[in-house]
Amino acid sequence: MAFSFRPVRPADARVTGADPLERLASLGLSLPKAPGAVAAYVPWAITGNLLMTSGQLPWIDGNLLYKGKIGKDLTPEKGYDACQLATLNAIAQLEDALGDLSRVRRVVRLEGTLNVAPGFTAHPPVLNGASDLIFAVFEEAGRHTRMIYTNPEMPMDCACLIVVYAEIEVP
Amino acid sequence: MAFSFRPVRPADARVTGADPLERLASLGLSLPKAPGAVAAYVPWAITGNLLMTSGQLPWIDGNLLYKGKIGKDLTPEKGYDACQLATLNAIAQLEDALGDLSRVRRVVRLEGTLNVAPGFTAHPPVLNGASDLIFAVFEEAGRHTRMIYTNPEMPMDCACLIVVYAEIEVP
Amino acid sequence: MAFSFRPVRPADARVTGADPLERLASLGLSLPKAPGAVAAYVPWAITGNLLMTSGQLPWIDGNLLYKGKIGKDLTPEKGYDACQLATLNAIAQLEDALGDLSRVRRVVRLEGTLNVAPGFTAHPPVLNGASDLIFAVFEEAGRHTRMIYTNPEMPMDCACLIVVYAEIEVP
Repeated sequence: MAFSFRPVRPADARVTGADPLERLASLGLSLPKAPGAVAAYVPWAITGNLLMTSGQLPWIDGNLLYKGKIGKDLTPEKGYDACQLATLNAIAQLEDALGDLSRVRRVVRLEGTLNVAPGFTAHPPVLNGASDLIFAVFEEAGRHTRMIYTNPEMPMDCACLIVVYAEIEVP
Repeated sequence: MAFSFRPVRPADARVTGADPLERLASLGLSLPKAPGAVAAYVPWAITGNLLMTSGQLPWIDGNLLYKGKIGKDLTPEKGYDACQLATLNAIAQLEDALGDLSRVRRVVRLEGTLNVAPGFTAHPPVLNGASDLIFAVFEEAGRHTRMIYTNPEMPMDCACLIVVYAEIEVP
Repeated sequence: MAFSFRPVRPADARVTGADPLERLASLGLSLPKAPGAVAAYVPWAITGNLLMTSGQLPWIDGNLLYKGKIGKDLTPEKGYDACQLATLNAIAQLEDALGDLSRVRRVVRLEGTLNVAPGFTAHPPVLNGASDLIFAVFEEAGRHTRMIYTNPEMPMDCACLIVVYAEIEVP
C-alpha cells in the first residue's frame, strides 16, 4: 500500500505513547521509507555521538507534495504541512541510521530552509511544522536549537528543506 | 533600566580586561538578557563539548533595532552594527548556558545570514561586525571559522541572523 | 609557476592512486595553496575529532574564476566546475590543517551554496561538482551528507561557496 501523508496539528491532538513511534502513531502518522539521496551523497552520517541528515524534502516516493513559494503558491498553513512532511522524512533517516529511535538522546538542532514569496516574512510559525513534530515525538529529548533560512529558487522548487542533528547513544 | 546598545568599532577602541566580560565592558558594551526563543525551540544546546546557539536577531527585549535590506534600507555600516548586536545576543546565550564565559575554550564557528539588497555583494566587511566583536572579547579563543549566507525575505525583515558554535569546558 | 585549474569529470577519468593526493593527480588535479581568510576569521578549525572549513570560494590566488548566476551568467556545467574548484580549495584547507590527508577518517558533510538565476531549480547536478570530487579523492571515506543552499547576491558575486566537515584522526 502506498504511503499517504495527512498533516496534523500536534497541539490539537492527544499525543500518547511510550516511545517515539507510538507517539507518531497517536498523531495518525507513520514513518515513510527513508528517502535515498538525490545525487552523489548519503542521506545520513554519524560522527562520534552526532547523527546528521542531509537536506530532507517534502516528498514521498520521489513525489514532491509541496512545491512553490510560501506566501504565493502555498499558504503558510501548507508551508507548515510541508515542514512536517520533510521532518517525517528526517525522522525516517534517524530510524534508518539507528534501527531504534530510542537511541536518540536528544535532537540538538533543526535547520529549516524555506522557499518564500517576496514580502513574506512570517517564517517562524511555518517552521513550527517541523519543531512541533519533533517535540511531540521526542518530548524532552526534542528540545532543539533552530535556524531558519530562506532561499530563492530551491531544488526542484521544493517548498522547504529540513536538516536534523541528533545526539545519540553509541553502543 | 532598559538595556541600550551603542555600537562600537573594536579597532578604534582600547580593549582591556582579564576576562570576556571585562573586555566587553572596556568596549562600552554589556550583555543583554539572553533572548528567549521566538517559537517552539530553545535558544542554545550543548552536545559533548560543543555549545551551539539558535539564530540570533539584532534585537533587544523583542524590539528589532535593525530591519530591512543592507545596501538599500541600511548602510553597510548599519549592517555591521546589526551583526554586532546579534552577536552580543549570541554571547549572552553562551553566558546563559555556561554561567561563566571563561568556560568557552574557543569559538569555533560563526555563521552570519544577511538580508541584502539586489546588487549588494560586499558582504565580508558587514559580517566583520560579528567577527571583530568575537575576537575582541575572546582573543585567541575567538579565532573562528566563518560562513556567510544571504537570504531573501528574512524573518520579521531582520537585517541579519547570527549563529555561534563554541567548544567548551565540560565539568 | 602559477597554479592553473582545468576542470575534470571524475566519471570520465580513470581514478587511481593509493592515497588522496595520488588520486587527485590521476585526475590531472593538484592542490592549490590553501586560501587565507578574506576577513577577520580563520579558514579552518578543529574541535575534538571534527575539522571544519570556512566557506570556500571558486578562486585561485584571490582571482575569482567563476562569478555570476548559474542558469544565466554561467551554464550548469560551469557551475559544476565552480563547485569542483571551491572543493579543491576546501581539500587544500584539510591538507593545511592536517599535514596529511590520510588523517581524514571521513568527510561527513558537504554544504554547497549556489548563486542561481531566477527560475533555475536543477541544483543537485551542479553541486555534484563537489560531491564527485570528494568521492573520487576520498573513496569510502568520502561518503558525505549534503545540503544545498541558494543565496541571492553572493559575496563578490561568486558562483558558489563550499563548506566541508571531516572526522579526523587525532594523534
